[in-house]
Amino acid sequence: MASALDKIKLAKQAANSLGLSSTVVKNQVLANIAALLPERAAQIIAANQKDLDRGVIEGLASGLMDRLRLDEKRIDSLAAAVTEVISLPDPIGDVVRGKTLANGVRLAEVRVPFGVIGVIYEARPNVTIDIAALAIKSGNAAVLRGGSAAQETNAVLIQLLQDALELAGVNRDAVQTVDEFGRDGGTQMMQAVGLIDVLIPRGSAGLIHAVINDSKVPVIQTGDGVVHIFVDESARLDWAVDIIINAKTQRVSVCNALETLLIHQRAYQRVMPEIMQALAAKDVVVHGDEQVAGDFENVVPATDADWSTEYMSLDLSVKVVADLDEALAHIAVYSTKHTESIITESNSNADRFLAEVDAAVVMVNASTRFTDGGEFGFGAEVGISTQKLHARGPMGLQELTSTKWLVRGAGQIRS
Amino acid sequence: MASALDKIKLAKQAANSLGLSSTVVKNQVLANIAALLPERAAQIIAANQKDLDRGVIEGLASGLMDRLRLDEKRIDSLAAAVTEVISLPDPIGDVVRGKTLANGVRLAEVRVPFGVIGVIYEARPNVTIDIAALAIKSGNAAVLRGGSAAQETNAVLIQLLQDALELAGVNRDAVQTVDEFGRDGGTQMMQAVGLIDVLIPRGSAGLIHAVINDSKVPVIQTGDGVVHIFVDESARLDWAVDIIINAKTQRVSVCNALETLLIHQRAYQRVMPEIMQALAAKDVVVHGDEQVAGDFENVVPATDADWSTEYMSLDLSVKVVADLDEALAHIAVYSTKHTESIITESNSNADRFLAEVDAAVVMVNASTRFTDGGEFGFGAEVGISTQKLHARGPMGLQELTSTKWLVRGAGQIRS
Repeated sequence: MASALDKIKLAKQAANSLGLSSTVVKNQVLANIAALLPERAAQIIAANQKDLDRGVIEGLASGLMDRLRLDEKRIDSLAAAVTEVISLPDPIGDVVRGKTLANGVRLAEVRVPFGVIGVIYEARPNVTIDIAALAIKSGNAAVLRGGSAAQETNAVLIQLLQDALELAGVNRDAVQTVDEFGRDGGTQMMQAVGLIDVLIPRGSAGLIHAVINDSKVPVIQTGDGVVHIFVDESARLDWAVDIIINAKTQRVSVCNALETLLIHQRAYQRVMPEIMQALAAKDVVVHGDEQVAGDFENVVPATDADWSTEYMSLDLSVKVVADLDEALAHIAVYSTKHTESIITESNSNADRFLAEVDAAVVMVNASTRFTDGGEFGFGAEVGISTQKLHARGPMGLQELTSTKWLVRGAGQIRS
Repeated sequence: MASALDKIKLAKQAANSLGLSSTVVKNQVLANIAALLPERAAQIIAANQKDLDRGVIEGLASGLMDRLRLDEKRIDSLAAAVTEVISLPDPIGDVVRGKTLANGVRLAEVRVPFGVIGVIYEARPNVTIDIAALAIKSGNAAVLRGGSAAQETNAVLIQLLQDALELAGVNRDAVQTVDEFGRDGGTQMMQAVGLIDVLIPRGSAGLIHAVINDSKVPVIQTGDGVVHIFVDESARLDWAVDIIINAKTQRVSVCNALETLLIHQRAYQRVMPEIMQALAAKDVVVHGDEQVAGDFENVVPATDADWSTEYMSLDLSVKVVADLDEALAHIAVYSTKHTESIITESNSNADRFLAEVDAAVVMVNASTRFTDGGEFGFGAEVGISTQKLHARGPMGLQELTSTKWLVRGAGQIRS
């Protein structure tokens, strides 16, 4: 049997077959995937049932079981998502910069695929298809390591992806799984310098930080969001209530959901009662500082740990701050550099917040839920980069590319 | 005494003071550096003499001694280089992308400083000034770790840089050295996740690979160049000779110099005699494959190691290949992904070479010596990135920046 390293090498060897393919060919691969998914629904569901049965035996939590499950309807929406990627513009070959030097040498910096992308994620078989579609459209071979709880499902999906490549005349090795090697598959990926060009961990903060800590291959950090909203002294109450409720309650298990609310001391009397009422109406559990816990009922006293907790639930930390400076200082300590928003009518405070907060996305008077590739108009999202190298904020197809400089001369030499 | 970690934290705390400074203020810092360098020449030279004296005792190689030495003339050229950075455009605040969403939310992705840049380099005090100037212009605090052989000189230069910051009203802590902690200074930098945003090693391949291997902080790989030129069947002889001689001999100790020459078998008879004659006239030592060693005099038989050697000297590996495919295969194995060039009159072979070679810069009919920030018109160069994440090829001020998304709304929420 091939080792994990052998399979990574296969992906590397196949990378040019996919990377040099035209947009037409890559779109054909995607069309094949979209067609094969419903065709093979029975086979996929049967494999998925094995994973689900094992999940029951192993006592998988109900949330994980739900993410693991594929049925005909979910398979159809996966196919629809792949079809949408067909319509997205292909970034490969775009000219980023270019010029002609005085000596006539012509330079062009053009977008190229990375080569081989590695993705380490948890037991969500839909990620297998989503990520493969984005990798294929951007011309990248992909080595995937999904959670072992989804191993049977992923094996069938990888076979399908490889068949879709081959049917379009592309080397089928361009998509690989190392699921069958368990943890060692991930370890081999993190060591594969020169074979895998970039590694993207998707999932829990624990998974992401383990990969950042252990990987020798460059990593793009995505994910965890301890997201703040600061209600400034001059905040409009109606905007504050609408934005806080939207950011906290529209969808709780996402990285752009609100986790900590900061309230300006001089806005407190004016805005707090209505905000607390609106939160209570949505069953939000407030973890408040001393002042909030003293003034309102049903408030859990906040612990130090609360300020750095990404609840992913209907919980919210609330703290009163003396001024913008204290809000900025709190955010600087506890922000995961994902998304931060200020509600204010003060132009100078808005400008200071935008300039001084160090995060991928900094907002004025808008819901933090807008930090999303779809909302930003990217059409697809690989994840939200919370680091500063290469990509920051929502990552679309363009963020899955590198560039190279093409130089065309007519015998020029350097003097 | 402060620890290396303390000094890294000082730089982090001072980063906003520099990062939020206007271009006018940053240019004033640079003007102060340019003025202080000649003013303090005597002090710098005295400190440098101590380093040189220790270098003699420790038996430093003459090349290293030369790179270590600062005299009045070199100090003046350092000041002139800093003055040039003043005239370069400031990338901070440039809008990269932007749009207004259907709901009226306005998005702008703008260039921001990384925050804190770490640079680990060898005993070249000019790098201390060069890198600090580029960091300051791009709004980045800098933690520098120069070679211990230049420790006395660097201490005086860091003091000068900090005075230049303070004279312009910027927090002087924005430039730090950890030289006094020896190897531990570098180790602390590589562990400083969340404090140092990006680490750039400059120097030998050994230094660069040690940093890539050990660093938890994201690294931009610069440097080593096993650079190839492929003389295709249809190559113009005059261009081939000019480009090969320029790429190999104009300056031998640079990363964009030619190291391996590949000759198409069917061009061999036509081009080789003149190429070999031109190389001999420049005292180039040819390490040839069997065919070359058999056909020409004074050829050193090439060993396997030669194909992956960056000579940095008047040595050149030469290999005859059957065709473009064999040239591409050889380059794929031995390229360090810096610069590769083809000499050809065939348009389709030029296109294949540009598309299929995986390197930062790929050329047709031009000298590999053009891979340079100055030649590309960047005005300054931090190094040549040979990796694919964030920056590829010559890195100027723009490559020392990240971006962030600024989002301005009027109470919008996500539906």
